[in-house]
Amino acid sequence: MASTPLTDFSRLCIHTITTKPWSIEEATDRYAAAGVRGVTVWRQWLDGREIAKVGANLRAAGIEVVSLCRGGFFPSIDAAERQKAVDDNLRAVDEAAALGAPLIVLVCGADPRQPLEESRRQIADGIAATLERAGQANIRLAVEPLHPMYADTRSAINTMAQANDLCDAIDSPLLGVTVDVYHLWWDPHLRSQIERCGRAGRIFSFHVCDWRSPTEDLLNDRGLMGEGCIDVPQIRGWVEDQGFDGFVEVEIFSNRCWAMDQGEFLEKIKEAYLKHA
Amino acid sequence: MASTPLTDFSRLCIHTITTKPWSIEEATDRYAAAGVRGVTVWRQWLDGREIAKVGANLRAAGIEVVSLCRGGFFPSIDAAERQKAVDDNLRAVDEAAALGAPLIVLVCGADPRQPLEESRRQIADGIAATLERAGQANIRLAVEPLHPMYADTRSAINTMAQANDLCDAIDSPLLGVTVDVYHLWWDPHLRSQIERCGRAGRIFSFHVCDWRSPTEDLLNDRGLMGEGCIDVPQIRGWVEDQGFDGFVEVEIFSNRCWAMDQGEFLEKIKEAYLKHA
Repeated sequence: MASTPLTDFSRLCIHTITTKPWSIEEATDRYAAAGVRGVTVWRQWLDGREIAKVGANLRAAGIEVVSLCRGGFFPSIDAAERQKAVDDNLRAVDEAAALGAPLIVLVCGADPRQPLEESRRQIADGIAATLERAGQANIRLAVEPLHPMYADTRSAINTMAQANDLCDAIDSPLLGVTVDVYHLWWDPHLRSQIERCGRAGRIFSFHVCDWRSPTEDLLNDRGLMGEGCIDVPQIRGWVEDQGFDGFVEVEIFSNRCWAMDQGEFLEKIKEAYLKHA
Repeated sequence: MASTPLTDFSRLCIHTITTKPWSIEEATDRYAAAGVRGVTVWRQWLDGREIAKVGANLRAAGIEVVSLCRGGFFPSIDAAERQKAVDDNLRAVDEAAALGAPLIVLVCGADPRQPLEESRRQIADGIAATLERAGQANIRLAVEPLHPMYADTRSAINTMAQANDLCDAIDSPLLGVTVDVYHLWWDPHLRSQIERCGRAGRIFSFHVCDWRSPTEDLLNDRGLMGEGCIDVPQIRGWVEDQGFDGFVEVEIFSNRCWAMDQGEFLEKIKEAYLKHA
């Protein structure tokens, strides 16, 4: 089914990293003034802040905290490093609770010094070790499958099928999936695996941007929706066909966009959101 | 099954682009002196040459021509461009015949202005339009699935499963697959899809290099075997378990390596081949 066009900003969420030059205070003011209704907060934006107060300020400005980004990075060949990762994820749960974020996005991690299968086992172990505290705090966790070009160091979970398999194996109502078009658009099984995820009630969040041609940097050359080859409305339609009616989160890492006047960039985001998301 | 270590250079093939600063004449002399027994010739190395003579010189130097690289790039939203692509592939068949290359590697192409499904249909059409002349010339064609980070402009065929599906659909004894570890290492279905390809008798060639962490360029930062996270011997073992006993082709695009003294680089290739391929 084709998606219904987005006609207002009631579902627009922006990741703080998208407007990287802005502090959380500036982002709060600017997003609110622009009518942005949701935010996903990256943890470094909380450095040195009283986290509960950041959350209160956002809500007072009419902005919902959609998720905290990011937990994960569980695998390592070194057991002490794996324990440090679990500790950090437990801290992320505490931060999410303080902030009032109902969800933590997991960039699961990978260690290039070991086979992907081993990294995947360690990811499952790390999530299992985090779930109890997440449950106590009433925080959900979302596995974000990452593009295969990040399989060396960022995530051994690279397709929706793998994320679904992982969720099946752990089988907790607290664990679901973040669908990010940038990572997944190329996958011929994307639609059927979104449907599988939806049937299990596991589509927890939805991220958008675009894939530019040429892409000149593996990390920081994402495009605004409409600047690339991803059919964002089609994928949004697949997600919404499964009942997802949550925020459409604009997450763009871009040296080019970060170099712009961020107020103008925010207007471009809003325009691209209505036209191409 | 684990692969048997490589103990000599009888199966070592190098792509001319791996030692990009060398002309075909210089590569012929240097490869022969180094005991390299196979070459895959990139078409631009034939510019301005009498192709049959290049092939004769290589054979006279004891070097087998393993394949011609590359055909493909079939998709376009523009029908005239698609016809130009077919014409170019027919020329590639003629060049392979003149050179004495039994195989053409296909980088299938993609057009970011249209859905991947449409590019895939056009790839199938383009291959079908090339097969008759390939058969007349006794040249085989190999679909090389490319990493998903190239799905926008270089190939809409991004996994072994897709390459196998495409070969099943066309079903010609002339059409098979090139297994390149760089493009495929991350795929959790790699082993089973190599087995599927092998059962169908379609593993036509095998390319190696490595994935560096961090990879700093989407195109030209491949590593020597052993410099990255790919378990090359494991994948070679899977390919050889299917009866493949052809050349192990070193195909490295690397600004770093191209900037080195190419004679020293060739020695490093030989060392990495024995230790890590």
